Amino acid sequence: MRAAMARQLSRIMRPDDANIAGNVHGGTILKMIEEAGAIISTRHCNSQAGEPCVAALARVERTDFLSPMCIGEVANVSAEITYTSRHSVEVQVNVMSENILTGAKKVTNKATLWYVPLSLKNVNKVLEVPPIQYARKEQEDEGKKRYEEQKLDRLETKQRNGDVILPVINPDRQTKEPHTVGYSQSSLIHLVGPSDCTLLGFVHGGVTMKLMDEVAGIVAARHCKTNIVTASVDAINFHEKIKKGCVITVSGRMTFTSNKSMEIEVFVDADPFVDEPRERYRAVSAFFTYVSLSKEGKPLPVPQLLTETEDEKRRFEEGKGRYLQTKAKRQAQMQQAAQQ
Amino acid sequence: MRAAMARQLSRIMRPDDANIAGNVHGGTILKMIEEAGAIISTRHCNSQAGEPCVAALARVERTDFLSPMCIGEVANVSAEITYTSRHSVEVQVNVMSENILTGAKKVTNKATLWYVPLSLKNVNKVLEVPPIQYARKEQEDEGKKRYEEQKLDRLETKQRNGDVILPVINPDRQTKEPHTVGYSQSSLIHLVGPSDCTLLGFVHGGVTMKLMDEVAGIVAARHCKTNIVTASVDAINFHEKIKKGCVITVSGRMTFTSNKSMEIEVFVDADPFVDEPRERYRAVSAFFTYVSLSKEGKPLPVPQLLTETEDEKRRFEEGKGRYLQTKAKRQAQMQQAAQQ
Amino acid sequence: MRAAMARQLSRIMRPDDANIAGNVHGGTILKMIEEAGAIISTRHCNSQAGEPCVAALARVERTDFLSPMCIGEVANVSAEITYTSRHSVEVQVNVMSENILTGAKKVTNKATLWYVPLSLKNVNKVLEVPPIQYARKEQEDEGKKRYEEQKLDRLETKQRNGDVILPVINPDRQTKEPHTVGYSQSSLIHLVGPSDCTLLGFVHGGVTMKLMDEVAGIVAARHCKTNIVTASVDAINFHEKIKKGCVITVSGRMTFTSNKSMEIEVFVDADPFVDEPRERYRAVSAFFTYVSLSKEGKPLPVPQLLTETEDEKRRFEEGKGRYLQTKAKRQAQMQQAAQQ
Repeated sequence: MRAAMARQLSRIMRPDDANIAGNVHGGTILKMIEEAGAIISTRHCNSQAGEPCVAALARVERTDFLSPMCIGEVANVSAEITYTSRHSVEVQVNVMSENILTGAKKVTNKATLWYVPLSLKNVNKVLEVPPIQYARKEQEDEGKKRYEEQKLDRLETKQRNGDVILPVINPDRQTKEPHTVGYSQSSLIHLVGPSDCTLLGFVHGGVTMKLMDEVAGIVAARHCKTNIVTASVDAINFHEKIKKGCVITVSGRMTFTSNKSMEIEVFVDADPFVDEPRERYRAVSAFFTYVSLSKEGKPLPVPQLLTETEDEKRRFEEGKGRYLQTKAKRQAQMQQAAQQ
Repeated sequence: MRAAMARQLSRIMRPDDANIAGNVHGGTILKMIEEAGAIISTRHCNSQAGEPCVAALARVERTDFLSPMCIGEVANVSAEITYTSRHSVEVQVNVMSENILTGAKKVTNKATLWYVPLSLKNVNKVLEVPPIQYARKEQEDEGKKRYEEQKLDRLETKQRNGDVILPVINPDRQTKEPHTVGYSQSSLIHLVGPSDCTLLGFVHGGVTMKLMDEVAGIVAARHCKTNIVTASVDAINFHEKIKKGCVITVSGRMTFTSNKSMEIEVFVDADPFVDEPRERYRAVSAFFTYVSLSKEGKPLPVPQLLTETEDEKRRFEEGKGRYLQTKAKRQAQMQQAAQQ
Repeated sequence: MRAAMARQLSRIMRPDDANIAGNVHGGTILKMIEEAGAIISTRHCNSQAGEPCVAALARVERTDFLSPMCIGEVANVSAEITYTSRHSVEVQVNVMSENILTGAKKVTNKATLWYVPLSLKNVNKVLEVPPIQYARKEQEDEGKKRYEEQKLDRLETKQRNGDVILPVINPDRQTKEPHTVGYSQSSLIHLVGPSDCTLLGFVHGGVTMKLMDEVAGIVAARHCKTNIVTASVDAINFHEKIKKGCVITVSGRMTFTSNKSMEIEVFVDADPFVDEPRERYRAVSAFFTYVSLSKEGKPLPVPQLLTETEDEKRRFEEGKGRYLQTKAKRQAQMQQAAQQ
């Protein structure tokens, strides 16, 4: 097995991929990223004789949206396997926007995804991953470090996830004051259809992320009533699968605002109401960060979030912590880059 | 002008058009019906020299789903103009399912739609409709009677519509007892994109009806946890247009159950939050009736709806009234048919 | 059986069906053409008692795009069976664009498709086709001639197809000089989902052609950096079926440019990587011709393709041969028409 198996996916961005200002939705890009990752890792995991399997998304690392993509541009998505553990595959995906009229190209995203091979015959059986070969020993060591780190984080969120209380969604917005949490809270339901699913009959991770971004975007737009775009998504762990025929409820609430950004927490709950007697359960949750743009594409100031309850105040402080941490990390990276 | 300008639209039903039992969603059919109606009435209204216009859906009469349609079958939708008043067009649409393997054909729907021509230059200006010619004088008289009846009903619902209170949606389902109104209540949000809209930049009536059926179906499935299908839709009046870029909230709550059917009230609220300073407003509301089917396609008994508040009890009685009225009307029609 | 069983399919063209200049993609039209053909031929092949079957697309004859279609126009697609051999059906499909505001209608395409009935129980079994009746004896004779000609061509390409080397796709476009073959080469991958497939679980020919047109369009736009539209598609033979769950890679490279047109060769390779141990295989290949249009819709000169390798030079000469042959044929037809 070679370490690098590059894979490319291209598509012209259509009007339905974008908001009315012409900016392609972050969710559309996340869905393409996940499709590329699913294809390359499924192919890799089936590359040796053995039980056929489908690679299921287990985790996406924190992703930044570096520059906007527009209707009519071509999105070029390339994927490469960068590490394999015994039971998981790390895929690195790069997205470039290309204006095919001017030839201008920009990196819009770099994402890291983790996949796990599930047997086609028995979805609860995790198979072994064929090892890849590394050009240099350090690549393997660094990959192993990343693997251990994400494993730890997945364990932690699994425990935390159970605690989270369902958000109270009150659509009676007229009685709410603008800029409160309740004012912009939003939720949608979606019946999982066949095109949303993998060969195993479970929802593609990319489909879930697209719906999450849709809700988060509506929360952000309701808060600041301007053109908004996805700036980043925190690491997302997919602990629980969602089966075809489920109804999923995707809910979002704003947790924090800085001068120029908004953080929105999004929950995905699955309701397997027809086939099985199982109770509704939390499948995924994540934090999305949005910025507000003027008609010329310049960042606008964001109205401060008004917190009312104790919980809202606590979540605001937690959001502030994440914001400051990310800011510090980015500054450290920039300094490091400057020194090199 | 001829009285009959038939128009046919055919399409193979795909997995995405249907639920997991393979029954095509009522909303998919309503969307095709409306597209056929929009094409024929827009063509007719532009058939004489004058200002160009787009026909906008004003009303759909009560529609019954007579037999189910399945994946792989071809839906044949034909439309005909049956009456014109000075400012509106009545279109009769018939839908047949065709199994192209066996050749079997069944009438699945008959719908009557009313369209109004709006100027392409000024969307608030209603233009005049070229008159059609009738084969017999009685056709014109009967059409006029239908026109007066629906006009009256539209006026009435317009007044009633303003009164309706926004439904309180509580997603904290776990705390609700099964079979209560709160247990099955559902809502979704949708950002209106370019493909949802007519040339005037307003949402196609068919797109709205498809979303309404989606929510109503989820409410019905949550209540009885079986395979459910749309049995009928009461008359729907489109009083308010919805513009591209709006967020729409579609909410459904169960109002009544008989032994074998469920009635669900659906509301569509538009939120023009980016472009304009206008408040959120009620765009459409309607009653959908669903039945529950066994794996063999036989109707199943429906668990009775548990009403808790005074409002819920009142709505249940009102639903019972509509149910008994429809039943009486159907029996009268069957007797009439038997005598002919 | 009657010779003519007309079948109509209509749809309003939406923003997603078109490029940013508002011209409907050739691929959208090819997909509608194939759907109409599949419906009429599947219906015909099941019109006599016997084993149920699904008509699978075997070949599309060379198709010219005579005039552009735009967003908001209605596409009217009508299909008719014009010849039947023992095991195949010839369908003639006509597409008209209709501006329902002005009433203007234009013929945009005429296509001829060949279908083969495959048993629903055993996809490898080709069934017999019920014969149609011809109004005149010459119709049958001319049909038979067309049948023999296409049969020969299908045999030839089947042999040729095997030889073709996989295109070297180098996404590292930055290092390539503009107007070279490598500069505009493009490819996309697509995971075959349920809505892409027929009742037999194989990809609809129309879905494949739509993807091919998408890639060819990107190659053309990259080469000349203007608004481009599909001018024609050479005969396409569907030798190999593609199953649900496969990943398909669609690759395109420019082979020839005349003063005002570009020829792009497109390959479709299927990778049945999960279910079966089969190797990746070539499913379809075809030549698409594009023209470049100014903002006013006038044809623009096309930059000459720079050929570098011996293979590129050879393909350019072959493309020139096809170009001159088509030109000569068209002139002969015009002279013939002038003489009539």
